[in-house]
Amino acid sequence: MKLFGYWRSSATYRVRIALALKGIDYEYEAVDLLAGAQRSDAYLKTNPLGLVPALEIDDGPALVQSLAIMEYLEEIRPEPSILPGGAADRAAARAIAAMIACEAQPFMNIGTQNYLKTEHGFDDAAMVKWLNHAPRDTMAAVEAMVARTAGDFCVGDAPSIADCCLAPQMFAAARFGVEIADFKRLHEINERCLALPAFEKAHPKNQPDAPA
Amino acid sequence: MKLFGYWRSSATYRVRIALALKGIDYEYEAVDLLAGAQRSDAYLKTNPLGLVPALEIDDGPALVQSLAIMEYLEEIRPEPSILPGGAADRAAARAIAAMIACEAQPFMNIGTQNYLKTEHGFDDAAMVKWLNHAPRDTMAAVEAMVARTAGDFCVGDAPSIADCCLAPQMFAAARFGVEIADFKRLHEINERCLALPAFEKAHPKNQPDAPA
Repeated sequence: MKLFGYWRSSATYRVRIALALKGIDYEYEAVDLLAGAQRSDAYLKTNPLGLVPALEIDDGPALVQSLAIMEYLEEIRPEPSILPGGAADRAAARAIAAMIACEAQPFMNIGTQNYLKTEHGFDDAAMVKWLNHAPRDTMAAVEAMVARTAGDFCVGDAPSIADCCLAPQMFAAARFGVEIADFKRLHEINERCLALPAFEKAHPKNQPDAPA
Repeated sequence: MKLFGYWRSSATYRVRIALALKGIDYEYEAVDLLAGAQRSDAYLKTNPLGLVPALEIDDGPALVQSLAIMEYLEEIRPEPSILPGGAADRAAARAIAAMIACEAQPFMNIGTQNYLKTEHGFDDAAMVKWLNHAPRDTMAAVEAMVARTAGDFCVGDAPSIADCCLAPQMFAAARFGVEIADFKRLHEINERCLALPAFEKAHPKNQPDAPA
């Protein structure tokens, strides 16, 4: 398998965590988002949406979209599982993952931020306000969700697809100035995540394309 | 089961299609988004994020997030399946669903549009430009994806979770003036979807809270 990604991309970071939790080895090819490599003809053949990550597999076109890739990894390598036992708990883990992937991250990603700056004239103050609206509201809702579902991790006592999304979201939120100090449960869970070797291996700072 | 939803909500519409494809009976409780019912104390206990849909089940808190709810329905009622056979095809169906749910719809939803209008001064021209950026680009990428994966439907010859997301996305795109005339494959697939009784039953116009 070959993972196309970028060290600081939230969605790539999610997939790296899932790969590491499952102990799956892979090649890594950096796609330099700052240089626009995601819009090159070659990369668009891999992922028509021009986003990272993409996962090249032996049979067929590369897989895209982090949520779909993590479900694929769960299917081909069920143990250790990144979905809890029990259909309702699995739904809760997938719901937290989807809240982050659908209701928080899209508003924060660099493409969205750059578009709002260049095409809609957002200055720094407007951007801070924007980032502290939907992304922050969503994280507040995740804080409320985990009050129902968490043990040591977002749902129960093992890391799941929800935690694969939470750690990158906490990283991105801190980076972009989203006010997350109040989210005590999310901080506690995130610290437990970051203490695990799989999360350490997957961390942006430990990727080959991270600045030295 | 009781589905909390809104007739014109894309995410509710997705779940209604999945329920109808699987022949699952359910109660329906309308949450009037225009009246702000999604932010009532009672509803926030059901869904802390204040979004529709939510699916009340017999055991435990209501399920939230359309992608997670559809996966839950697939687990408790596997037939007819809304995931194709084969891990790579399932990944493709989930990827198309995620593209729509993460990279198109969030930028179009009423909450986002209202926020951009009231807090960031978007006028009609700015909104049309906004809606024809990320949502349209994403639909162009879905058009490219289905060129690889489609038979009669988005992935192969049976409706899947991808089609559960596509039909509501086409409905919303038309409603909000996203330029989709060029997406010939998506139109063809959508027409096949709309001809199925399950999609007809789930259509916004056929819901109890739709205007007469």
